[in-house]
Amino acid sequence: MHDDIAGLLAEAGRLALRWFRADPAALGTLDKGGPGGYDPVTEADKAVETLLRAGLAERFPADRVLGEEQGLTGDPAARRCWVIDPIDGTKAFVSGVPAWGILVGLLDGDRPVAGWMHQPYLGETFAAVDGAGTFTGPAGRSPLRTRATTALGDAVMYTTHPSMFATDDERAAFERISGAVRLQRFGGDCYSYCLLALGQLDLVVENQLHSYDIVPLIPIIEAAGGVVTDRQGRTPVEGGFVIAAATPQLHAEALAVLG
Amino acid sequence: MHDDIAGLLAEAGRLALRWFRADPAALGTLDKGGPGGYDPVTEADKAVETLLRAGLAERFPADRVLGEEQGLTGDPAARRCWVIDPIDGTKAFVSGVPAWGILVGLLDGDRPVAGWMHQPYLGETFAAVDGAGTFTGPAGRSPLRTRATTALGDAVMYTTHPSMFATDDERAAFERISGAVRLQRFGGDCYSYCLLALGQLDLVVENQLHSYDIVPLIPIIEAAGGVVTDRQGRTPVEGGFVIAAATPQLHAEALAVLG
Repeated sequence: MHDDIAGLLAEAGRLALRWFRADPAALGTLDKGGPGGYDPVTEADKAVETLLRAGLAERFPADRVLGEEQGLTGDPAARRCWVIDPIDGTKAFVSGVPAWGILVGLLDGDRPVAGWMHQPYLGETFAAVDGAGTFTGPAGRSPLRTRATTALGDAVMYTTHPSMFATDDERAAFERISGAVRLQRFGGDCYSYCLLALGQLDLVVENQLHSYDIVPLIPIIEAAGGVVTDRQGRTPVEGGFVIAAATPQLHAEALAVLG
Repeated sequence: MHDDIAGLLAEAGRLALRWFRADPAALGTLDKGGPGGYDPVTEADKAVETLLRAGLAERFPADRVLGEEQGLTGDPAARRCWVIDPIDGTKAFVSGVPAWGILVGLLDGDRPVAGWMHQPYLGETFAAVDGAGTFTGPAGRSPLRTRATTALGDAVMYTTHPSMFATDDERAAFERISGAVRLQRFGGDCYSYCLLALGQLDLVVENQLHSYDIVPLIPIIEAAGGVVTDRQGRTPVEGGFVIAAATPQLHAEALAVLG
């Protein structure tokens, strides 16, 4: 299954790159708006989702598909559902920053069982199939493995933007954990979770995620040895508040501080 | 001069990549501390500065050199001074994020006359020599050109981290401009200024910069058609509060809002 999806992602990546760093007018950017303010969607988002849907329908005609732009489609009786975010990190995409990715995940019932993140400008793919995580980059393929950090005081933590924490309770929780880690940084989008799986950073704490933002990344984080849950300690298949950590110990410490 | 420095930067880039995404223990990370909190310096910072200094001394023995790690060296009577930041964005570097860069700039008296930013993982170089800005990337070389945005309400603005604004006045100024732009994003380090010169974003507003963080980028921004000053409208050769904008009109509007 990996090579089949990797081939589809390579095709999707070439398509997305036609718009990356191209004429902003050609992007056809529209503002979807919403509680988080400006929320752009581009011609690239739509075209890549259409390509991925066609490729998945051809390969797995019985499965359902949930995508950011076209919603949930397919047979409600199907057990498997592909979850796709054609351009995760559209704000990075429209700014020329290569922290966006093409996300594809597979749910078996409500269990995320496989996931891929492809960054075509960098030529990188992070994947997890059957519990094995792999990184494929310009220098070849290697296993994904989180690093061994167990204490918040040693941790490097990433969050895309502070506005993800909208209520007083969420802001207070984020301030507590920001004060407890060694280094707190903003930015990163889906790429932060992949760098966690690659053993480059220790913690990602975010909020207001959609299902398609995180489902494809869950198997990647878990296959690398990390732990990812919501604030109640459950697998975050619905999105929302997400805590991803390099080790179970670090995750437990983060959850305790977040409350 | 461009090819000479580009060759030296390519060598420095290969050296830096030995540590990028390598074993964290091998990085030998030390905390320089200071008012901004955790401030890492690595073996890569020191080795790359040593290499750049040797290369510059060989090519331009009469010139002075100002570097982040070794300070100001050379003949005080010299008119020209090379300004280098071996790894600008060390926090990105230690997190595996390719937004760091190797910066080299040239001051003639107090006037920045040439600048380079090299990102070896991406294979990208942004350069400005004799007022001509060029981008060299995996797909070849092209001129640098900012985009035509003139209104804050249409602008995409980047800032590395909100903690750059430490006083009440600075925080209030940053909040005012954040509320005025279309899209406000964090992260980016030196790469944000380069994306501005590449026409991908419109505004970078930062504070607490050192001279070596910004001097190499000033010629790149200006050669692309952008404007970069401090809050008083002066060329920010000393660092501090920096406003870089895609057009003179946008810069004037930003300066008025920042106060």
